[in-house]
Amino acid sequence: MIFMTLQTDLMAKLTADQPEMVAIRRHLHAHPELSFHEKATAAYIKAFYQPLDCTVTDYGTGYGFVVEIDSGQPGPTLGLRADFDALAVQEDNDLPFKSQNPGVMHACGHDAHTAYLMVLAKNLIALKARLKGRIRIIHQPAEEVSPGGAKDMLAAGVLTDVDRVLGLHVMTSMPTGSIGYHLNETQTGRGNFTLTFTGKGGHASMPHLSNDAIVAGAYFVTALQTVVSRRIDPFDTASVTIGSFDGVGSYNAIKKSVTLKGDVRIMKESTRKVVREHIEKICHGIETMFGVTAELDYDDNYPVLVNEPKFTTQMIDSLKAAALPEINQIFDCGPQDPSEDFAYFAQNTPSCFFYVGCQTPDGGNHPHHSPDFMLNEASLLIAAKAAGTAALAYLCH
Amino acid sequence: MIFMTLQTDLMAKLTADQPEMVAIRRHLHAHPELSFHEKATAAYIKAFYQPLDCTVTDYGTGYGFVVEIDSGQPGPTLGLRADFDALAVQEDNDLPFKSQNPGVMHACGHDAHTAYLMVLAKNLIALKARLKGRIRIIHQPAEEVSPGGAKDMLAAGVLTDVDRVLGLHVMTSMPTGSIGYHLNETQTGRGNFTLTFTGKGGHASMPHLSNDAIVAGAYFVTALQTVVSRRIDPFDTASVTIGSFDGVGSYNAIKKSVTLKGDVRIMKESTRKVVREHIEKICHGIETMFGVTAELDYDDNYPVLVNEPKFTTQMIDSLKAAALPEINQIFDCGPQDPSEDFAYFAQNTPSCFFYVGCQTPDGGNHPHHSPDFMLNEASLLIAAKAAGTAALAYLCH
Amino acid sequence: MIFMTLQTDLMAKLTADQPEMVAIRRHLHAHPELSFHEKATAAYIKAFYQPLDCTVTDYGTGYGFVVEIDSGQPGPTLGLRADFDALAVQEDNDLPFKSQNPGVMHACGHDAHTAYLMVLAKNLIALKARLKGRIRIIHQPAEEVSPGGAKDMLAAGVLTDVDRVLGLHVMTSMPTGSIGYHLNETQTGRGNFTLTFTGKGGHASMPHLSNDAIVAGAYFVTALQTVVSRRIDPFDTASVTIGSFDGVGSYNAIKKSVTLKGDVRIMKESTRKVVREHIEKICHGIETMFGVTAELDYDDNYPVLVNEPKFTTQMIDSLKAAALPEINQIFDCGPQDPSEDFAYFAQNTPSCFFYVGCQTPDGGNHPHHSPDFMLNEASLLIAAKAAGTAALAYLCH
Amino acid sequence: MIFMTLQTDLMAKLTADQPEMVAIRRHLHAHPELSFHEKATAAYIKAFYQPLDCTVTDYGTGYGFVVEIDSGQPGPTLGLRADFDALAVQEDNDLPFKSQNPGVMHACGHDAHTAYLMVLAKNLIALKARLKGRIRIIHQPAEEVSPGGAKDMLAAGVLTDVDRVLGLHVMTSMPTGSIGYHLNETQTGRGNFTLTFTGKGGHASMPHLSNDAIVAGAYFVTALQTVVSRRIDPFDTASVTIGSFDGVGSYNAIKKSVTLKGDVRIMKESTRKVVREHIEKICHGIETMFGVTAELDYDDNYPVLVNEPKFTTQMIDSLKAAALPEINQIFDCGPQDPSEDFAYFAQNTPSCFFYVGCQTPDGGNHPHHSPDFMLNEASLLIAAKAAGTAALAYLCH
Repeated sequence: MIFMTLQTDLMAKLTADQPEMVAIRRHLHAHPELSFHEKATAAYIKAFYQPLDCTVTDYGTGYGFVVEIDSGQPGPTLGLRADFDALAVQEDNDLPFKSQNPGVMHACGHDAHTAYLMVLAKNLIALKARLKGRIRIIHQPAEEVSPGGAKDMLAAGVLTDVDRVLGLHVMTSMPTGSIGYHLNETQTGRGNFTLTFTGKGGHASMPHLSNDAIVAGAYFVTALQTVVSRRIDPFDTASVTIGSFDGVGSYNAIKKSVTLKGDVRIMKESTRKVVREHIEKICHGIETMFGVTAELDYDDNYPVLVNEPKFTTQMIDSLKAAALPEINQIFDCGPQDPSEDFAYFAQNTPSCFFYVGCQTPDGGNHPHHSPDFMLNEASLLIAAKAAGTAALAYLCH
Repeated sequence: MIFMTLQTDLMAKLTADQPEMVAIRRHLHAHPELSFHEKATAAYIKAFYQPLDCTVTDYGTGYGFVVEIDSGQPGPTLGLRADFDALAVQEDNDLPFKSQNPGVMHACGHDAHTAYLMVLAKNLIALKARLKGRIRIIHQPAEEVSPGGAKDMLAAGVLTDVDRVLGLHVMTSMPTGSIGYHLNETQTGRGNFTLTFTGKGGHASMPHLSNDAIVAGAYFVTALQTVVSRRIDPFDTASVTIGSFDGVGSYNAIKKSVTLKGDVRIMKESTRKVVREHIEKICHGIETMFGVTAELDYDDNYPVLVNEPKFTTQMIDSLKAAALPEINQIFDCGPQDPSEDFAYFAQNTPSCFFYVGCQTPDGGNHPHHSPDFMLNEASLLIAAKAAGTAALAYLCH
Repeated sequence: MIFMTLQTDLMAKLTADQPEMVAIRRHLHAHPELSFHEKATAAYIKAFYQPLDCTVTDYGTGYGFVVEIDSGQPGPTLGLRADFDALAVQEDNDLPFKSQNPGVMHACGHDAHTAYLMVLAKNLIALKARLKGRIRIIHQPAEEVSPGGAKDMLAAGVLTDVDRVLGLHVMTSMPTGSIGYHLNETQTGRGNFTLTFTGKGGHASMPHLSNDAIVAGAYFVTALQTVVSRRIDPFDTASVTIGSFDGVGSYNAIKKSVTLKGDVRIMKESTRKVVREHIEKICHGIETMFGVTAELDYDDNYPVLVNEPKFTTQMIDSLKAAALPEINQIFDCGPQDPSEDFAYFAQNTPSCFFYVGCQTPDGGNHPHHSPDFMLNEASLLIAAKAAGTAALAYLCH
Repeated sequence: MIFMTLQTDLMAKLTADQPEMVAIRRHLHAHPELSFHEKATAAYIKAFYQPLDCTVTDYGTGYGFVVEIDSGQPGPTLGLRADFDALAVQEDNDLPFKSQNPGVMHACGHDAHTAYLMVLAKNLIALKARLKGRIRIIHQPAEEVSPGGAKDMLAAGVLTDVDRVLGLHVMTSMPTGSIGYHLNETQTGRGNFTLTFTGKGGHASMPHLSNDAIVAGAYFVTALQTVVSRRIDPFDTASVTIGSFDGVGSYNAIKKSVTLKGDVRIMKESTRKVVREHIEKICHGIETMFGVTAELDYDDNYPVLVNEPKFTTQMIDSLKAAALPEINQIFDCGPQDPSEDFAYFAQNTPSCFFYVGCQTPDGGNHPHHSPDFMLNEASLLIAAKAAGTAALAYLCH
């Protein structure tokens, strides 16, 4: 009963604050900063909390910080996490609040994550006397780039005494009004590698005096396809992509070296090992075949994101029970291909990470990370209400 | 003057014996035998010499033998060599003297070589009192298949005390009536290899439990192309062919092993080493990449055939001087792609190997080693006259 | 109560008949016949039924037939299916009942399937007055080879008026005493293709005059790896295997043509289309690149085997409830890589296909289709009891 | 006799002017300019001629010009050509006259060519009253970069009324004191191509939604190896190099497009066609296979450089006869891998292009086009004397 009133009050406050969320999101969108360089962003968010009745504490070596909301009542501690970094993408949208930083863009929606969470936090602070336990608002930097901001905050103890963590991502692939979720393994784990083949350069007309690094790199790429096609159980999941092949040179010279950047996705940590082992073997084979040396810098980074099934079911059930008018669909969206460093939070603390549809009303295709990424700002209120509902359900039920 | 008469007489005898040459050639053509199995062929040839005034001596462990023609006069010794083995080809010609042995065919013209040389030898025996020095008629088996019959005869001393060696090949690519020659490096040297990749078989639907030998073999073939394209001086000559890829299996099983047969051609012994070294490297690279073992059985066999330029020039000049009516063109035909184990003879004894055009009158395309190989039998007399002229020129001038 | 007694009686009879099952299985094992050639096998099985009170009817153009058991009582009709063909494998076991047919072997356990089902059928016939509805015992030929025996029997109406179908497979990968099952998509769908690349043959030393079919085939195999690695959703399932690469030739000739055999597995019919489409594209690309023609004979055969979840759950629950002493584990074994033409039965009639562990007591590795395939004969009684229990549960509950 | 004195006098003058040659070369070396941008270089050279008794005339649309030396006597006209452009290479030598233009270097010796020819021209002008015929000194820009400076000067008529042309190149691969030459085909012809594969970009974790341009490019490179390995007569010459593979991107995105730069060398124009045709076929095959479009911009540029054998023999014979003390070896160096746009001059006018050894005394390896390219300045006097001797021999004998 108490909970019902609380829920009703929080929802009402959020509805009223929708314009504020949008304004914050637009400010962030216009002033994006690259991962690990979010100085102004962090300062902007902190300034927002400055007048409020809460504690702001830095965690880690980057710009990450935490806003502690203590109800003063006994109860569990819930982490609510949003990321605030932007991408090295040049915005290709014509918007009044278009990115003002050339080559940098909030092209994944982290501006929306941060905006909704700031306003939700403000209202939870306002209501804190009526809450139980504590809420730890986690403003995380650098989700996009390995090693990610989560790891560093964790090392600094950001989840000490936290019982559960909640996170979400807006999704342009899902209609606005829909909430997607999945139990257990939910987003891929990731590895990245940088690989340099160094042979011997020379004149294009005298191949026999060189060890052609472009040829070595090309045969590597073709052999690499067998990792997924022959080494992985067809019922398992893996992808291996060479996202960069830097063999830039001139017409008439044989390249001495090329540098490749690779991306690996898996859904089981055992598969991660298999992929890496076979990439290494192929590197060595190429060395032997083509008289080149392979320098492989392999970075096994984000884990598989695992949603704790009990907590996740509880959160989703609370959303269903709340029957929020803005939400018309709550569905199991299956596992998602991309990776998330929220996975680090979920490794040791039971967590739930869900998806908030943010497709534009025209059903337009604005993929994440693309220069024309665009979200429906109605999703901000939905995110705030969904996270707020889930938070109250966890803390006060 | 004496020489002129001798030459005239020999030519006349050969002209008269043309039908005999053709008859012998047709007999041989109808009864071909595979390399190293030419028992009946050797017996047939020996029977021909039996009534003649000459010495027949076996050389080597195979069916090769020599017919010694000693003029009794001082002078040099000349070797004349013809090969008599056939190929594992099923004849696809409709001829009265078509091969009677299924799957075996004189598809390279060795029947013609042997026939002309037998009749030439018979006439040289008849004229031997007017000759100088000695002629060693070398009937060689097994030219087609490594290690070849020449090597073995050489080991048995077939060229001991021989000063020069002469050989020839009929060529369907050259018009009948033409004689081709080239100085110095004239036919490629050859290597062959058998390569077995052994991985781990399994069910087609479970690739991750196997090491797919067909995949290993296929990547080997693609990498192998770089030996010629990247490792050989563009001004040098090399070819590397996989002539056999035995990965015969079934739809639903992953092959445990495949066996490849390779062919290498070069024009310099130093290139031979480079090719082999890189094939070995690629084998090792494939082993590392695909978890297979590579068993490489590499056979560096026939050398580059080198025509001694002085002797060759002398022979060609004698042909030009003879102005035989059947020969209307004597030309430098450049180096020839195929290999010849006559090259072993030429390694230590100054030699000349030339080509006798034998294209059919309609200009038809009957490539050597093909099931429809066909030669113009007019080339037999030309071969006999050319070799006879050259022999007299060497011995009696 | 009636059911309980019936179940108790059937189990007792089966226990008593274990020696008969083993004897039948050994007879079949000693006399294996290839798919579509199971004449003696079919005659042997029919002879078994001859004295029994049942109707035997041929279905389809092969050796398949049905044994109808009609209780005379109203009720549903249940199909029980076992396959009876063997494989082209040379047995490599030392057994008193080792295959007497060279190159043919019951290497997949169909002998066990048939043996258990014959004895189960005999006992169901004996008890038929106490049953309800009807049982259609389906003895199916040619499971191993496309198009499979099931399709033909279906076309002949084998499932007309059948309400549910039950099938099982013994599994050496599962311990004896265990029963595995999975709901919904349970075994892969399959396609097979035969692909011939025809170029232009020639002499190994003259590659420029040929279009090398082995080279074309090898590049095809490497490009083919991208179908799985780049064209399939990492969360989806597909495998593409070249199980046969017939490029058998000689050292010194460039192959004119090669023939490949391919195997495709998928878990969604939409994926089947994607795989096929990309294989076709790669064939066409190879044609353009290497001057060869590609003749692709593509056979989309076995569907994905889909276990109807409700019926399957019901069957598994009946097994759990029966608490048979021989069964110590009933578990969701996940989807299985191989394909099954039982999938055709399951396409239109709600079906359940489950797995009976048959690993030898020493835990030995005797994979299906291998020359040393070996099963624990204790699995025959387990199969008979499991199928019998499920049948009674379906018909009489 | 008159010639002998003239030759003696010219040689003496050149010996005396050696310091001037070196000074000019060092000035040019310190102030290199890229092909088609040699404004200051051309001005510097023209200033040198300004006080001399000759006519300077621009030819073509670039910085090329001609210095006409007319003896006033009847006789033939000889062209003497030197190139003056530099390369986009950052010099890595520690020299007082090191390049002062960052990223630009005389790394091929064109500074030496120009310096020797300027001083030779000055002396020929001084002696012109004793000469016959005319000498056309051709200062050519932009040899290094297609389409080259020669073509443009030719279009403007630079060889109108010129009977023979002479050119030379310093060679660090030949010892100082040696002169290399070859008759007929002497340097390769060249083609270049730029090739862009455009597919569809996307997220690295979702390959099935993209058409991966890096994968397409890599398979292209491996297939490209077959052009040389399978399409070219082993006795012919060809090389195909991908000198640039620009697929620069990021870890987690699939590249939409890659751009390759290719280099082709041949020794016969018919081979040029074969190479191009097969590159085009492979491009089309890749398009079909991988769902990309290939944009191929193919530039068949420099022809095979053909030394007219009679004129070349005459020139070499004159050098041998001159017995210059600085020259201790004149040898047939065989064909040379690189290409030269002097080949355009030689297409219509009988020409001779020879090589002047310029290896440093320590035998160091300073390849042309490398950042540590270094030449022995003693080669300047040798070049001047050799060209001067050849010129006099042609004009005055």
